[in-house]
Amino acid sequence: MIVEMKRGASQEQIDGVVERAHSFGFDVQLNLGTEKVVVAVLGSDTGKVHTDVFAVLPGVQSVTRVMKPYKLASREFHPRPSKVNVSGVEIGGQRIVVMAGPCAVESEQQLIETAVAVQECGGLILRGGAFKPRTSPFSFQGLGKDALEMLSKVKSEFGLPVITEIVDVHDIELMIEYADIIQVGARNMQNFSLLKELSKLKHPVLLKRGLSATVTEWLTAADYLMAGGNRRVILCERGIRTYEDSVRFSMDISSIAVVKNVSHLPIIVDPSHAAGNALYVPSLAKAAIAAGADGLLIEVHPDPAQALVDGLQSLNIPAFKKLMAELKPIAEAVGRSM
Amino acid sequence: MIVEMKRGASQEQIDGVVERAHSFGFDVQLNLGTEKVVVAVLGSDTGKVHTDVFAVLPGVQSVTRVMKPYKLASREFHPRPSKVNVSGVEIGGQRIVVMAGPCAVESEQQLIETAVAVQECGGLILRGGAFKPRTSPFSFQGLGKDALEMLSKVKSEFGLPVITEIVDVHDIELMIEYADIIQVGARNMQNFSLLKELSKLKHPVLLKRGLSATVTEWLTAADYLMAGGNRRVILCERGIRTYEDSVRFSMDISSIAVVKNVSHLPIIVDPSHAAGNALYVPSLAKAAIAAGADGLLIEVHPDPAQALVDGLQSLNIPAFKKLMAELKPIAEAVGRSM
Amino acid sequence: MIVEMKRGASQEQIDGVVERAHSFGFDVQLNLGTEKVVVAVLGSDTGKVHTDVFAVLPGVQSVTRVMKPYKLASREFHPRPSKVNVSGVEIGGQRIVVMAGPCAVESEQQLIETAVAVQECGGLILRGGAFKPRTSPFSFQGLGKDALEMLSKVKSEFGLPVITEIVDVHDIELMIEYADIIQVGARNMQNFSLLKELSKLKHPVLLKRGLSATVTEWLTAADYLMAGGNRRVILCERGIRTYEDSVRFSMDISSIAVVKNVSHLPIIVDPSHAAGNALYVPSLAKAAIAAGADGLLIEVHPDPAQALVDGLQSLNIPAFKKLMAELKPIAEAVGRSM
Amino acid sequence: MIVEMKRGASQEQIDGVVERAHSFGFDVQLNLGTEKVVVAVLGSDTGKVHTDVFAVLPGVQSVTRVMKPYKLASREFHPRPSKVNVSGVEIGGQRIVVMAGPCAVESEQQLIETAVAVQECGGLILRGGAFKPRTSPFSFQGLGKDALEMLSKVKSEFGLPVITEIVDVHDIELMIEYADIIQVGARNMQNFSLLKELSKLKHPVLLKRGLSATVTEWLTAADYLMAGGNRRVILCERGIRTYEDSVRFSMDISSIAVVKNVSHLPIIVDPSHAAGNALYVPSLAKAAIAAGADGLLIEVHPDPAQALVDGLQSLNIPAFKKLMAELKPIAEAVGRSM
Repeated sequence: MIVEMKRGASQEQIDGVVERAHSFGFDVQLNLGTEKVVVAVLGSDTGKVHTDVFAVLPGVQSVTRVMKPYKLASREFHPRPSKVNVSGVEIGGQRIVVMAGPCAVESEQQLIETAVAVQECGGLILRGGAFKPRTSPFSFQGLGKDALEMLSKVKSEFGLPVITEIVDVHDIELMIEYADIIQVGARNMQNFSLLKELSKLKHPVLLKRGLSATVTEWLTAADYLMAGGNRRVILCERGIRTYEDSVRFSMDISSIAVVKNVSHLPIIVDPSHAAGNALYVPSLAKAAIAAGADGLLIEVHPDPAQALVDGLQSLNIPAFKKLMAELKPIAEAVGRSM
Repeated sequence: MIVEMKRGASQEQIDGVVERAHSFGFDVQLNLGTEKVVVAVLGSDTGKVHTDVFAVLPGVQSVTRVMKPYKLASREFHPRPSKVNVSGVEIGGQRIVVMAGPCAVESEQQLIETAVAVQECGGLILRGGAFKPRTSPFSFQGLGKDALEMLSKVKSEFGLPVITEIVDVHDIELMIEYADIIQVGARNMQNFSLLKELSKLKHPVLLKRGLSATVTEWLTAADYLMAGGNRRVILCERGIRTYEDSVRFSMDISSIAVVKNVSHLPIIVDPSHAAGNALYVPSLAKAAIAAGADGLLIEVHPDPAQALVDGLQSLNIPAFKKLMAELKPIAEAVGRSM
Repeated sequence: MIVEMKRGASQEQIDGVVERAHSFGFDVQLNLGTEKVVVAVLGSDTGKVHTDVFAVLPGVQSVTRVMKPYKLASREFHPRPSKVNVSGVEIGGQRIVVMAGPCAVESEQQLIETAVAVQECGGLILRGGAFKPRTSPFSFQGLGKDALEMLSKVKSEFGLPVITEIVDVHDIELMIEYADIIQVGARNMQNFSLLKELSKLKHPVLLKRGLSATVTEWLTAADYLMAGGNRRVILCERGIRTYEDSVRFSMDISSIAVVKNVSHLPIIVDPSHAAGNALYVPSLAKAAIAAGADGLLIEVHPDPAQALVDGLQSLNIPAFKKLMAELKPIAEAVGRSM
Repeated sequence: MIVEMKRGASQEQIDGVVERAHSFGFDVQLNLGTEKVVVAVLGSDTGKVHTDVFAVLPGVQSVTRVMKPYKLASREFHPRPSKVNVSGVEIGGQRIVVMAGPCAVESEQQLIETAVAVQECGGLILRGGAFKPRTSPFSFQGLGKDALEMLSKVKSEFGLPVITEIVDVHDIELMIEYADIIQVGARNMQNFSLLKELSKLKHPVLLKRGLSATVTEWLTAADYLMAGGNRRVILCERGIRTYEDSVRFSMDISSIAVVKNVSHLPIIVDPSHAAGNALYVPSLAKAAIAAGADGLLIEVHPDPAQALVDGLQSLNIPAFKKLMAELKPIAEAVGRSM
């Protein structure tokens, strides 16, 4: 933490900063410039302290972090990449993991048709929403527990592990029973009471990036999940909110390289929610793999025109098969398999 | 809903759009342009249907909303401004309502000192956080129920109604007991399971705008609160995320006029969380009142330099008193009282 | 400038940073933390050097500025507020300066009607576009020199100084002849060759904020204008690009307080271009004055429905008169006159 | 253009909209909904008219475009992809075109070392800045004409066509003489007087996307270049401004698929300016090729630590060679060659 004093700050004010640093157990070094004093606050735990703690003191001009506010998710804490094993499927390893399926589970028939296609093309995990967080209260909210039952049945038939989203902290027991990966949606990335509950589990959790979260905030949310002991965290980039209006969200392709640089956690990408339009999903999916993502979360539906939710962004089965075939050589070009 | 067909769309594709519109009970009118067919889908409930329902059909180029996706929060639904009465304090009426207090309740002494100042300067509601949604799991998370007890005690002593934030759906019973207004924080604006529970109450709810929510999304979230029967909703603008980095969030001053134009709900402004710095709070507070806001939510702390949370953005008591004195003539200049 | 070294950076790498700092004539102080070395680079001119100069060196983790990149526009360089005198009208003084008129000059009749209203209501400067920077090549591009002639004629009749926009560096001679204030539009804020030419003049220049410029970049552009010797610079906030779509641009109300804090330059606000809709102009104009702006730039047209450019955001004359009457008590409430 | 009338709009107001549409030669069709009238304005040139022309009329609630505001750059105008031939190098064809070189030309030696590497690795065009648009007036502004001479010399030696940026409309003659492609920088994307001059040439122009331009605005700027007769336009995505701060700009990977869908112009990507950090350039470059870009613009410098401009984002020569080798299989995986 670097504390820049105002010009002409008094010795008493400088002492105030030093004392506060000492109160947290930090070391301090003074830099006496020609115009300003700069106090360097040193220590491995400075990231845990908010900059405001110093900024609020009299005579302080500005405070800049040196340590990031997250710790457990950082590469400094865990230098080698983490791998998350989900019923035998390794996420973050050499193999690209494609999770695919409908946005919302609508019927067993729909799930089976999709599962056949997913498995046939080399998809490793089946996705399907049971509880849907919808922006309007008048929209279809998901089939709930019935959907979980269908996922369970199809899972046992096909042997595909299942990922589904949690939207209410009350559903944790259900989730543990039915889901192989519990998905935290973008709008819940900073639902801290939910994160705390999930932190107590041993279950894999996929943490979607909030729609206007910085990478730093996202990794700090991952710290919430890990702080209680759950180390099976998978990140998922799903597009961020920008001014551009030709797509629903702007997929932040840079976040892949940034996350790989600063964190050990595996990262997959959801091109379907980013684009909001099946037309753009193949281009984004290819880009994600080339950029170094560990996998993809893709919406597939046997008949998107009849889908109850997000049909526009769902690939139909032939388009999904075509994409999977196109992804394979790209994965190989970056030294991965599919 | 306006459905633009692609050039050369077939009659069958056009029929598909018409049929889908009819399936929702909507009327349809065809516009045969020289280059394209445009299908107007008409009816008062078209706002409740997602544009994707049409966009996904073959031959469709684009779909544009005419009706907004929210209904209960709209001025078309309720043409006159709503007023929310909180224990005798009317929000949305002629009088500007200032809610002030510490970000987090830290002690009874701190609360009492603040309450004295709030009441002395014409503040009408006391704010104080009991449960704090913190971005880092290592930060102070609030005193919880103890804080609620302190709020309750100070409330009965000073007769000031109390606003406090809910962060967990499990705390609803506690909130009903202790809070006069239940605050939904920015990060929970689209926590739909929380909104649904609050929707069943008769308790006033203050809904903060999500940090990257559009005005339309915000009002649609208000619809969630109102759909279950709770009509006592107050909106609170608290700054949005932009690229600008000289303040924590950019207070969206335009949202006041926009909300007043399209909605009947009262709107107040939180300049403290917007700016993230007490230095800028007075300028923003004055602007909000001049722009037409119905009130303010301001952080005040007897000793910001010692605050456990958000000290930097808290006014100390003399600064708060000065601001309140400065706000009065502005309120009067726009025909309000304080 | 604070240079954070990577963990385990070698002594040679640290020496490299120190040497580079010395090569610019800066002082250096080393901070030896438990985990990392932090090098403080000290000196009053560090703001002029790009952080990359250090970030590119081996062993460096990150570099943070302490000094801002602008100098001449800063309050540290010039502690008291600057005032710009334009033919007797003082901008940045006690009086609020309203500049009003049509987006584009269309005819002498239109200008005269507007000038009568501007003068009657206490407006002090007449605005009118001669050269229009239009986003589409198929749009009306302004009357050019003919418009300047009309402005000149109306100016001499009414005694109102005139502001008009420069869009081409070739027009500087014309501008000097006809304009009392030369306006640099948002899209030209970083047209550095234009800024350099204007920098050589003694003419007042109004510098609009670029539509996605930070306050820091804006003030650095002001430094371009001032570096050549022109100190008559007026800033103009006109809304920034955000994700919000209910207005054309989001007026950055915080920028007023921020600019007043870090710069000595006067700042006015253009609510018309920000909102893009006359409906929202009064609310924004009032907010700007309450927030501390030194003036306003408002579009007024005798018949907005027939305007060739930006009619939607233009006030008609009765609306303008009403607004001016409403602004006066707000100006007085913040200790200004109108 | 779809004009939505307010509820209860009068017949006279509806007639006003119809008349205005007719005045532009457009057809009109009325849609009489149960609650509102919607007027469809039809015709192939409605894109050239600003929505405000209707929005400003009394009784109008909102106006929505159906036709895009650009025409010459659209795929509807020119259904097949355009290819731009630059001294024998085809941009937009089957082969991926890599343009590489230093941000700023510093010396002949520097240029030669880079040119050797570019040619050796299959780069087809040499980039190098002569005039640099710098955000600070105190920064190095480029070697100007001397740099153009060096580029010319190296070009004749190596046979590599040259791309360099124009920053001042006065330099057009110089550019025609020395540059094979004239680059328009992001900050000049809406410098319309510059675009108009370039529009008169037959010279290839590379149009960088403005740092907060929508795809629609970018293509409308391309229309400026094409409106005067210049059809040799190449688009270049270089990152957009968002709230994310781990990179300098967020590369908008979706823009590639969007541009390919709506426009016929070739599009290349500049990962160096997007990331602002050489660390992230390889990931972004690979993603761009996988997403379907026609080429790359990459900064390469023999000794980035000594570069006068943007060293941090420049690859050194070994890193560039490594990247080129890695790109080849990705290009092949998407059916392109390098």
